Amino acid sequence: MKLTILGCHSATPHANKAPTAQLLATKKHLFLIDCGEGTQVLLRKEKVKFAHIKHIFISHLHGDHFYGLPGLISTFRLLGREAPLHIYGPKGIKDAITLLLKLANSWTNYPLHFHELTQKSSVCLLAEDEIEVHTIPLKHRVYTNGFLFRETPKDRKINAETVEQHQIDQSQMRNLKEGKDVVDAQGNSIANQKLTHDPRPPKSYAFCSDTAYHPEMIDQIHQVDVLYHEATFLNDHQELAQKTLHSTAQQAAQIAKDAHVKHLILGHYSSRYKDLTQFQSEAAEIFPHIDLAYDGYSLEF
Amino acid sequence: MKLTILGCHSATPHANKAPTAQLLATKKHLFLIDCGEGTQVLLRKEKVKFAHIKHIFISHLHGDHFYGLPGLISTFRLLGREAPLHIYGPKGIKDAITLLLKLANSWTNYPLHFHELTQKSSVCLLAEDEIEVHTIPLKHRVYTNGFLFRETPKDRKINAETVEQHQIDQSQMRNLKEGKDVVDAQGNSIANQKLTHDPRPPKSYAFCSDTAYHPEMIDQIHQVDVLYHEATFLNDHQELAQKTLHSTAQQAAQIAKDAHVKHLILGHYSSRYKDLTQFQSEAAEIFPHIDLAYDGYSLEF
Repeated sequence: MKLTILGCHSATPHANKAPTAQLLATKKHLFLIDCGEGTQVLLRKEKVKFAHIKHIFISHLHGDHFYGLPGLISTFRLLGREAPLHIYGPKGIKDAITLLLKLANSWTNYPLHFHELTQKSSVCLLAEDEIEVHTIPLKHRVYTNGFLFRETPKDRKINAETVEQHQIDQSQMRNLKEGKDVVDAQGNSIANQKLTHDPRPPKSYAFCSDTAYHPEMIDQIHQVDVLYHEATFLNDHQELAQKTLHSTAQQAAQIAKDAHVKHLILGHYSSRYKDLTQFQSEAAEIFPHIDLAYDGYSLEF
Repeated sequence: MKLTILGCHSATPHANKAPTAQLLATKKHLFLIDCGEGTQVLLRKEKVKFAHIKHIFISHLHGDHFYGLPGLISTFRLLGREAPLHIYGPKGIKDAITLLLKLANSWTNYPLHFHELTQKSSVCLLAEDEIEVHTIPLKHRVYTNGFLFRETPKDRKINAETVEQHQIDQSQMRNLKEGKDVVDAQGNSIANQKLTHDPRPPKSYAFCSDTAYHPEMIDQIHQVDVLYHEATFLNDHQELAQKTLHSTAQQAAQIAKDAHVKHLILGHYSSRYKDLTQFQSEAAEIFPHIDLAYDGYSLEF
């Protein structure tokens, strides 16, 4: 997986502070996660082929996560897109986009599929091409979901040497890859683990923004490879975080620690902070493996 | 008046090609004209005090003239705005903005006044502080208005010397400034022109985008100081201009010539043209006083 953070700042766009938008590239997909105002310009800067984006996930309908979407949808049309586009987001997103297209007296010349969300518990949005995407219910001022991207478990790897020793028939290979025990030519049952190796563990990425401190998410993001968790405030504004249903850097770190994630990325900083290094230092008191997001940050894992 | 062009490109935003947005500063106002996606970032770059903008004029509801408005309205709220904001634009603009604010579960904490337009002939939108703003009905694929900004006529200037010679009473000064003839101490009527000078002519600016070639506007923009007229295409795409209801550079120049305007600014270039100098050369065959708009262009007049 390759994650590219196009924008990671909260609230109002500035010259060099883009609102939330991320790209996650998997083997066969290029997912866009949130789409703040100006996202299409950031996609151009990253030289992204717009046609490769087929699924867009919108966490919630605050402007800094969503107001770039109408323009992007219009641009797809101007570029002559024909491939279907799937948009996943809170109920209401279809009405909003539809109204804006209607007022412009235009419509898309490609199929536009809205998948509107209202569920309070996690649902599977997509399961194809070796990847699954699930919602992560979050706690914010409006209905909000994070998103969990997880590779589907790989087949177990055949141990050619022991398979030959035990004279396992070729017809049993599928069962072996699926982790089942098999019988050899003599009719003896052989444990799968003797005949296969562990596959590469499935990679996983969790996007959690915007949200208050919300330990209910921990089970779902247990041991993910990379967690992006919002950290709008430092400790000095704990009360404001509570009031606005955002998180502090330390709360994000606590979630990462309790979920035993491998790597934490912080972002969605309030524009009141000029120096961001304190996000790192406060969070590192609780959890060590941290990156501070910046616009243009990328990570392969 | 001071005009600043924040963005002047058509259709899809690029890294260095912003969609339409302009600022017009008069003695007492800072008007925003159109608001393509990313306008608030361009306002930051120009170091504009957001609170100074009290009137926003939207020509039509295509994305490249309008999709920056929801974010700007939200930003005003985040900045703690209290002053009323007036938005002038085609019918439907209120529904669109209201729906987006509702979905974000937010509302403005300042008075937001929508002035929705449906009229097919010119209407006066504003007349205060020595300025009048009128719509200029245009011809495009959706209902579209340009805007004419014109200073109200100034008072005539008192000629102190002749006023003294004729012993005109102080109580007549208002009549003199308004251009009326007055009587002197001896009861003789004195022509106003003997007692006053012409004032500085009122300045005027006309914004006309987007529009097909539309000579019906000529009477209304007669002799304006500055005309901004869209020029999406060159002569090589005359048919496309006709089909999409846009103008060529030469059509814009023809309007400028026939309306006897003092200065023409071209903009809204199609992104298909890499070299813009041909807009100047084609238009100059018809009308000589031309500037090519660019993002960040400004002109005092």
